[in-house]
Amino acid sequence: VPAERLSVDDWQREAAAVLDEGTLGYLEGGAGDERALRETMAAFARIRFLPRMLGGFAEPSLATTVIGTRISLPVIVAPVGHQRLFHPDGEQAVARAAATAGTVMCVSTMANTSVEDIAIEAPGADLWYQLYPRIDRSHRRELLQRAEDSGCTAIVLTVDVQSLGRRERDLRTGFRLAPSMPMPNLHREDEHPGTLGEIASVLEPALSWDDLDELRSWTQLPLLVKGILDPRDAVLAADHGCAGVIVSNHGGRQLEGTVAPIDALPRIAEAVGDRLELYLDSGVRRGVDVLAALALGARAVLLGRAAMYGLAVDGEAGVVAVLELLRTELRNAMHLAGVASATDVPGDIIWR
Amino acid sequence: VPAERLSVDDWQREAAAVLDEGTLGYLEGGAGDERALRETMAAFARIRFLPRMLGGFAEPSLATTVIGTRISLPVIVAPVGHQRLFHPDGEQAVARAAATAGTVMCVSTMANTSVEDIAIEAPGADLWYQLYPRIDRSHRRELLQRAEDSGCTAIVLTVDVQSLGRRERDLRTGFRLAPSMPMPNLHREDEHPGTLGEIASVLEPALSWDDLDELRSWTQLPLLVKGILDPRDAVLAADHGCAGVIVSNHGGRQLEGTVAPIDALPRIAEAVGDRLELYLDSGVRRGVDVLAALALGARAVLLGRAAMYGLAVDGEAGVVAVLELLRTELRNAMHLAGVASATDVPGDIIWR
Amino acid sequence: VPAERLSVDDWQREAAAVLDEGTLGYLEGGAGDERALRETMAAFARIRFLPRMLGGFAEPSLATTVIGTRISLPVIVAPVGHQRLFHPDGEQAVARAAATAGTVMCVSTMANTSVEDIAIEAPGADLWYQLYPRIDRSHRRELLQRAEDSGCTAIVLTVDVQSLGRRERDLRTGFRLAPSMPMPNLHREDEHPGTLGEIASVLEPALSWDDLDELRSWTQLPLLVKGILDPRDAVLAADHGCAGVIVSNHGGRQLEGTVAPIDALPRIAEAVGDRLELYLDSGVRRGVDVLAALALGARAVLLGRAAMYGLAVDGEAGVVAVLELLRTELRNAMHLAGVASATDVPGDIIWR
Amino acid sequence: VPAERLSVDDWQREAAAVLDEGTLGYLEGGAGDERALRETMAAFARIRFLPRMLGGFAEPSLATTVIGTRISLPVIVAPVGHQRLFHPDGEQAVARAAATAGTVMCVSTMANTSVEDIAIEAPGADLWYQLYPRIDRSHRRELLQRAEDSGCTAIVLTVDVQSLGRRERDLRTGFRLAPSMPMPNLHREDEHPGTLGEIASVLEPALSWDDLDELRSWTQLPLLVKGILDPRDAVLAADHGCAGVIVSNHGGRQLEGTVAPIDALPRIAEAVGDRLELYLDSGVRRGVDVLAALALGARAVLLGRAAMYGLAVDGEAGVVAVLELLRTELRNAMHLAGVASATDVPGDIIWR
Repeated sequence: VPAERLSVDDWQREAAAVLDEGTLGYLEGGAGDERALRETMAAFARIRFLPRMLGGFAEPSLATTVIGTRISLPVIVAPVGHQRLFHPDGEQAVARAAATAGTVMCVSTMANTSVEDIAIEAPGADLWYQLYPRIDRSHRRELLQRAEDSGCTAIVLTVDVQSLGRRERDLRTGFRLAPSMPMPNLHREDEHPGTLGEIASVLEPALSWDDLDELRSWTQLPLLVKGILDPRDAVLAADHGCAGVIVSNHGGRQLEGTVAPIDALPRIAEAVGDRLELYLDSGVRRGVDVLAALALGARAVLLGRAAMYGLAVDGEAGVVAVLELLRTELRNAMHLAGVASATDVPGDIIWR
Repeated sequence: VPAERLSVDDWQREAAAVLDEGTLGYLEGGAGDERALRETMAAFARIRFLPRMLGGFAEPSLATTVIGTRISLPVIVAPVGHQRLFHPDGEQAVARAAATAGTVMCVSTMANTSVEDIAIEAPGADLWYQLYPRIDRSHRRELLQRAEDSGCTAIVLTVDVQSLGRRERDLRTGFRLAPSMPMPNLHREDEHPGTLGEIASVLEPALSWDDLDELRSWTQLPLLVKGILDPRDAVLAADHGCAGVIVSNHGGRQLEGTVAPIDALPRIAEAVGDRLELYLDSGVRRGVDVLAALALGARAVLLGRAAMYGLAVDGEAGVVAVLELLRTELRNAMHLAGVASATDVPGDIIWR
Repeated sequence: VPAERLSVDDWQREAAAVLDEGTLGYLEGGAGDERALRETMAAFARIRFLPRMLGGFAEPSLATTVIGTRISLPVIVAPVGHQRLFHPDGEQAVARAAATAGTVMCVSTMANTSVEDIAIEAPGADLWYQLYPRIDRSHRRELLQRAEDSGCTAIVLTVDVQSLGRRERDLRTGFRLAPSMPMPNLHREDEHPGTLGEIASVLEPALSWDDLDELRSWTQLPLLVKGILDPRDAVLAADHGCAGVIVSNHGGRQLEGTVAPIDALPRIAEAVGDRLELYLDSGVRRGVDVLAALALGARAVLLGRAAMYGLAVDGEAGVVAVLELLRTELRNAMHLAGVASATDVPGDIIWR
Repeated sequence: VPAERLSVDDWQREAAAVLDEGTLGYLEGGAGDERALRETMAAFARIRFLPRMLGGFAEPSLATTVIGTRISLPVIVAPVGHQRLFHPDGEQAVARAAATAGTVMCVSTMANTSVEDIAIEAPGADLWYQLYPRIDRSHRRELLQRAEDSGCTAIVLTVDVQSLGRRERDLRTGFRLAPSMPMPNLHREDEHPGTLGEIASVLEPALSWDDLDELRSWTQLPLLVKGILDPRDAVLAADHGCAGVIVSNHGGRQLEGTVAPIDALPRIAEAVGDRLELYLDSGVRRGVDVLAALALGARAVLLGRAAMYGLAVDGEAGVVAVLELLRTELRNAMHLAGVASATDVPGDIIWR
């Protein structure tokens, strides 16, 4: 019953009921003992708010801009790969849902649909393009060009997949992508998916700041770096001309035992100041999680697993519903916390 | 068996057995994942006492004054709405019980009985009046007048219901107030209750300090602000001429993830000094909880859910019994902690 | 099977199996929600040791002196009341066991055997006398005289029973002492036991430092104060000429939510220095607990419940066995921690 | 199914299924309440990493040297006694596995195979020799000579078995070594094993720094001290000419309640600087545990129980498989954390 879909937890339960074991393990799993995964969520649960009262406003403003694009709520759809695993409509459904909700979708290099087709099938959608750089450098340049030609307005370079994390759920289920799950952004015609390890084997294992500089030289689009946790790396990103940093531990799927991104965020915010835009990825499930991220320095958050729950349960409509749920919760939380605008969230609503 | 009612927990268990699912969910529930609700209680459980010995007194004095009214124990009945949900005798029973126990009852704007009738049916009761301001400003002024005319001695302005908190238990049970549960303080003749959301929709969503100033100008009664957690708001309350501040997170029912009021209290006490009287609301279940609140700067506490357990189980007598249980526990705790008077509880009985 | 009695936990399990519900609840219970009781034990479990190696000694010395009496291990039997509840041999068995183990037994005012009879039936035992002062001051003086005449070598004044703690287990079971459980130290001929509340009703509720001074003036015996947690009270005890302070929260049975005695001990040790002897009571179950207490400033610990487990299971032999178990564990812990003597335990074996 | 052996936990489960209760208790148990054992693992689980990105290297280097011996990964096989308990091939299998994996095996004085036979049956293995000094000093000298003659390249002196820890699992199962489990390093011809207590009874209980000096004078081999937790003892080890210190709490099997070695390590590293090599023993189960130890000052870790799980399940091949699992996990963790070489792990990858 839709009335029971009151929280992301509800959507998660429904998604778990409709997905096969391998796909569910892929979606939900983390690396190793999943300490990073649990900590990512636990860190949000430890946050305590100190709301302000009598603010004298009836309706908080949730709109903001992300790298110059106006969005209606500070929640972007994260670049999740292989979205056709969750629903036959896959990436197109998600792109249309993001457009409906008035936000950006970040298209993954691992998408089952080409960036060109997503752009065509979701006209009006604001798209960013997430890049996993292949070892073959000509492919990188080609992909940037395709993304730019398809109308994407920013490039998100993922930097935390030097190797694939040890995701034991996938190793246990023997999870592999079926041939019917193409990856037209990543693969050339004669390549086919397989296990995640096989897929990752074509990615650059020695990515460097020089690679990043080269990528920047190939495109006019603003570049964001995804997967940063150390403030020094965020400062380097600013030094190298990046427009933004996405603070992320890849949903707890790469290095076991990382600090929670929401805990890493404040020091990064302090280190980079206004030099670039900060985003928070990993573990967001509640409006209060979004509010916390904004208070601690993020401009918006990226929503990965939660959006996929919606996709799995109800396709495009499900993604819209999850985004609207987050909007409802965030609006409520901002109003109750005395925060009038998502563009100006005081840090001192967090109890220290 | 009455002999088994040794603690508020016992009363809670009995109440849970007699209330229907919707009413119980309404009474017990909190916002979102109920983190604020659990933290509110957990914060009391973390407090550790450092008692003093050989104080040389046989009987601690529990009496104090609240905004000039003498009460026999530093526990006030909180402004819980819809008390007829718990027992057909509703607010009248509670008012009489408070009078019997020698303390103040705070009448809610959401009461099922008009403030006039409560005053008539509980002669001798010391009443405060809790105000939810409607958008319609003439109604606010009218309500203040009615409360004053009915003999209430203080106005408690609740400021933390800008929007209704996301109470998922109520959303799941589809909880709504039956037409047989009138709200004669809130509603005009042609209005009727429904869901909590519908009820809250008439309340002012943009309440400001200007509103508060205006309310003060309309009444001679001292004004307390309920729902403050940030010390700066408490200072503003003093600046705006308030007589008291009730530190509260609305029982964990409004903003998810708030700091526990008992944790917020000390910084507020330090910020306001003697400029106004401080009260603590939310999560009190034990005499030691009252003692902690007094040690950390409160003059008295407000008792909400616990009083309603008594009401649900045994009507007026139940409320008296719960208040007497708190008195017994507090007396015991004060004696054992070496605290001779509720008007002078040293802060250093709390271990730091 | 004796071989299974490897720890105090084992003795506790066996005792639980042989005691009736009321007696077991009396022995095991604490006040209120039993937070103080749990915290008392949890604080020991939080302690982490930093042992020293290559100390070059084969056999640690466990002997010490307590108020001038030499004992073979730094563990004294605490003044537990009503020991005949646990075994028909009651206090005599415990006194003989303490003598066998080479330590002191502290006789309780609530003993089921008169101090005179204990002294006669356990010749050679080193006895201290624990005093609960009655309201009737002549009785206090008489008791001191009886203790002195019976050969007790120190007086332990319990100061934390201004009122009886709210021990809900006892209230639930309706626990009361049978007429066959006399209290010849406390009662006059025409008085009989009943509930704990009735028994406590004859005790002085307004005990003061003046009372203590008067008690001291009536006896040549050294006076220890039992039930101190605040360093200022320990300093006052030194100022008033006490020979020792027993840091205790009465086994978590009096004020709910007190700090754990082992946590309170270091500040007290720092405050009093060498002005008097410090003891630790409440929650000791392991040799490492004794070692921790000694490292943090105690000269010895008092063992209450654990000794009673031995008494309940096997009478005098059981008490001896529990004391020998503690000796074995403490000897092992001292050797492994590099602590050569119980009279000189460095504070820095505790990790901070 | 081998495919399910994805983690040391998996190997542990399989080992638990094939070992008898006494042997399993001996392998898994700790002292007392096993607080030290749990804390040893819990301390690793508390560590949070702050990885660096864009490091520009494809393959981290895991090789290092330990006391001058080159090893292919910073994991040494710890000196576990009685390895024939776990598999009939015992120590020879482990030595061959260590050689195959390219690392050192530390032979125990409690081995069921003589150091000479181990050296013969695992040609090419790099062996260290762990010494438990007997009271009989001539035996110590003889053992050092035998180890040296057998080609061992370092002596590891265990200093934390002054007495045997109270391992209650062993006491409960009545664990004793069968006569078919000889200890040819420890025992003379006419001696036979029995309980662990009987075995330990021949060891020196009063080991001192003088003993250590004497041992050093008898051998040219570098000496490491195993069982240090206090920085002052590590400094003394350097003062006394030791080549290395192994920070260890003996797997939680000796003193109950010790600090976790991984928590003790940083202060030791700070105290000794470059004066000697530091190693970490106890509780290592994951590649991230190794990485943490290296970041906090260790040159390599010792692997005890985990290697024995492999031995129990699959003999020599099982030990190789466990070591290769650790290599795979560590390689992955280093790559993802941005750590290029095991010889240079920055401390600031640990979140503080």
